[in-house]
Amino acid sequence: MKQNRVDAVLKNLDAMGLSQVLITDPLSILYLTGRLIKPMERFYALYLNNKGGHKIFINQLETVPEDLGVEKVRFSDSDPYLDYVFSAIDHGEKLGVDKNLPARFLLPLMDRSAAAGYENASLAVDKARAVKDEQERELMRRSSKINEMAMAALKERIRPGVTELQLAGEMEELYASFGADGLSFPPLVAFGANAASGHHYPDATALKPGDCVMFDAGCTYGGYCSDMTRTYFYKSVTDRQAMVYNTVLEAMQAAIDLVRPGVELRDLDLAAREVITKAGFGPNFTHRLGHFIGLEDHDYGDVSVSATDLALPGNIFSIEPGIYLEGEMGVRIEDLILVTDEGYENLNSLSKELEVVQ
Amino acid sequence: MKQNRVDAVLKNLDAMGLSQVLITDPLSILYLTGRLIKPMERFYALYLNNKGGHKIFINQLETVPEDLGVEKVRFSDSDPYLDYVFSAIDHGEKLGVDKNLPARFLLPLMDRSAAAGYENASLAVDKARAVKDEQERELMRRSSKINEMAMAALKERIRPGVTELQLAGEMEELYASFGADGLSFPPLVAFGANAASGHHYPDATALKPGDCVMFDAGCTYGGYCSDMTRTYFYKSVTDRQAMVYNTVLEAMQAAIDLVRPGVELRDLDLAAREVITKAGFGPNFTHRLGHFIGLEDHDYGDVSVSATDLALPGNIFSIEPGIYLEGEMGVRIEDLILVTDEGYENLNSLSKELEVVQ
Repeated sequence: MKQNRVDAVLKNLDAMGLSQVLITDPLSILYLTGRLIKPMERFYALYLNNKGGHKIFINQLETVPEDLGVEKVRFSDSDPYLDYVFSAIDHGEKLGVDKNLPARFLLPLMDRSAAAGYENASLAVDKARAVKDEQERELMRRSSKINEMAMAALKERIRPGVTELQLAGEMEELYASFGADGLSFPPLVAFGANAASGHHYPDATALKPGDCVMFDAGCTYGGYCSDMTRTYFYKSVTDRQAMVYNTVLEAMQAAIDLVRPGVELRDLDLAAREVITKAGFGPNFTHRLGHFIGLEDHDYGDVSVSATDLALPGNIFSIEPGIYLEGEMGVRIEDLILVTDEGYENLNSLSKELEVVQ
Repeated sequence: MKQNRVDAVLKNLDAMGLSQVLITDPLSILYLTGRLIKPMERFYALYLNNKGGHKIFINQLETVPEDLGVEKVRFSDSDPYLDYVFSAIDHGEKLGVDKNLPARFLLPLMDRSAAAGYENASLAVDKARAVKDEQERELMRRSSKINEMAMAALKERIRPGVTELQLAGEMEELYASFGADGLSFPPLVAFGANAASGHHYPDATALKPGDCVMFDAGCTYGGYCSDMTRTYFYKSVTDRQAMVYNTVLEAMQAAIDLVRPGVELRDLDLAAREVITKAGFGPNFTHRLGHFIGLEDHDYGDVSVSATDLALPGNIFSIEPGIYLEGEMGVRIEDLILVTDEGYENLNSLSKELEVVQ
């Protein structure tokens, strides 16, 4: 196990008045053990107790020869595995459980009075995952580097009559060729008015001169997600398109300039929103400024008008303002920002200057 | 709502000593209301009570203008929607809940003492879903018909040097062209020794003369899944390959011949297994004979040596014996069988005779 991460979770648990937890989110178990198992519908859990006696419960169908640094309890589908879990739990204390622990596992534990009470304790893990250690920062940097190489190559594929679906498919191939191990989410490619919709999926729309071209995409590397958006213009750009673009870029920069430990996250959203509102497009910036990211594209934590948490060194979140003009165009620009001890590190360095692709 | 289906669920609940249930499986709600909503991480539930007062809880982000035949309770992300659920529940009675109800919804209801107790009541719904009514049978027939047309067309695509991945991709296109609305699961295509593995995913393996060619695929129509397997031989077949093939076919027919209301499902598995064991391949038939199917490719219910349930008119399950010879070949043949009042109806009519594709 990654001891520093386990300690962070136990400390967060303690602040919630809990001494033990049953973690069932496979990505949280990956975070704590370094091992990813996808259990499908089968039981899979890591039990932590601040007095020790940690255990991991793994079905025998999974091949796990390596030492995970925690006692392995193996079981088959026909074994009474919830009895084994029951035996591990301190019955006199409350038990923290994962927010998504299914009733078919929780109710039988309750029926046996496995603990003195049960609480949703996901925040203890989610808050630890929101502060990336050096190993995680390095994986996030590499994931973003691959993302940038792929997106730069994709820009070169912009050509007359190409469809959104074609470019989206080529992006998946580019990721593989640059060494990504997966996708953060299916690549978004949107031309012209399609870019005005927050939920457009790439379709058979063909590129036309004068269109904006939005790429919003991310890959995974070592399990960690990248996520970046760039918006280009094809063949020409109007004064209005350029004004919208530069407003989004200015809003983005206003927010990035504020990033340092201790800043209230909502102040970043407000700074970007103020730039866009002053330019007259307030109602057209229809979403929060950003989201935390790590093992999931959308990790716990957001950068919105209601986010009163303070930025901590090790937080990594997106800053992605946008202006969406229905039936006309959309512009969004997105980088991932790491909060450092002194200020911030931008994980993305691909140019954000307005660019007309010929 | 589909009143007959609601009545079946309430009757099953009553047999479990329950008067009310909170159903959260989106496919079970589709089964009861005719409407599919994919709520992602948001709360979505159908509450049923045998004294009436049924309610469906739907986030306002979903557009649901139509009358669902049940009172709609709409809420936004910021509304105290669990308060609304609390108000609907009869606090003096036990509450049945879905096997997968997440702790983040169940624990707050328990904290408020929403009910006199909580029980996993998924079986009440799953057992109703296992008996298909006439509308469902017709959708299952159409789904299987499309599956047969696509697989017959895929057989024509068998050609020198084609890869498993190419045929799997072409199968997805064929489904779309024949009017399927989705996939039951990603198509499986396996050549030669690859067909010996129960968990082979199509890869870049190219077809060679003398290979067996296994297709295991299914599509959805009106939400209902088809699932069929055929194994062909390319260019030539050896006596041993033919013997293995005909053993599987004979095992399949032995099981199908027994299907009628009242037969113990395990007897079907045993009949097929006996044929394969007598031929000397008992250890090479490594899985259960079949699974129930409907809105999910693997519905609740199976056809295995431990299945003591009796077949009921309206049950639909796969019969899919196989022989897997590591490093050499694999043969599996699969049809979907509907139990009728008198016997059975085979939803598949595509030839199962041994066939050498040139």
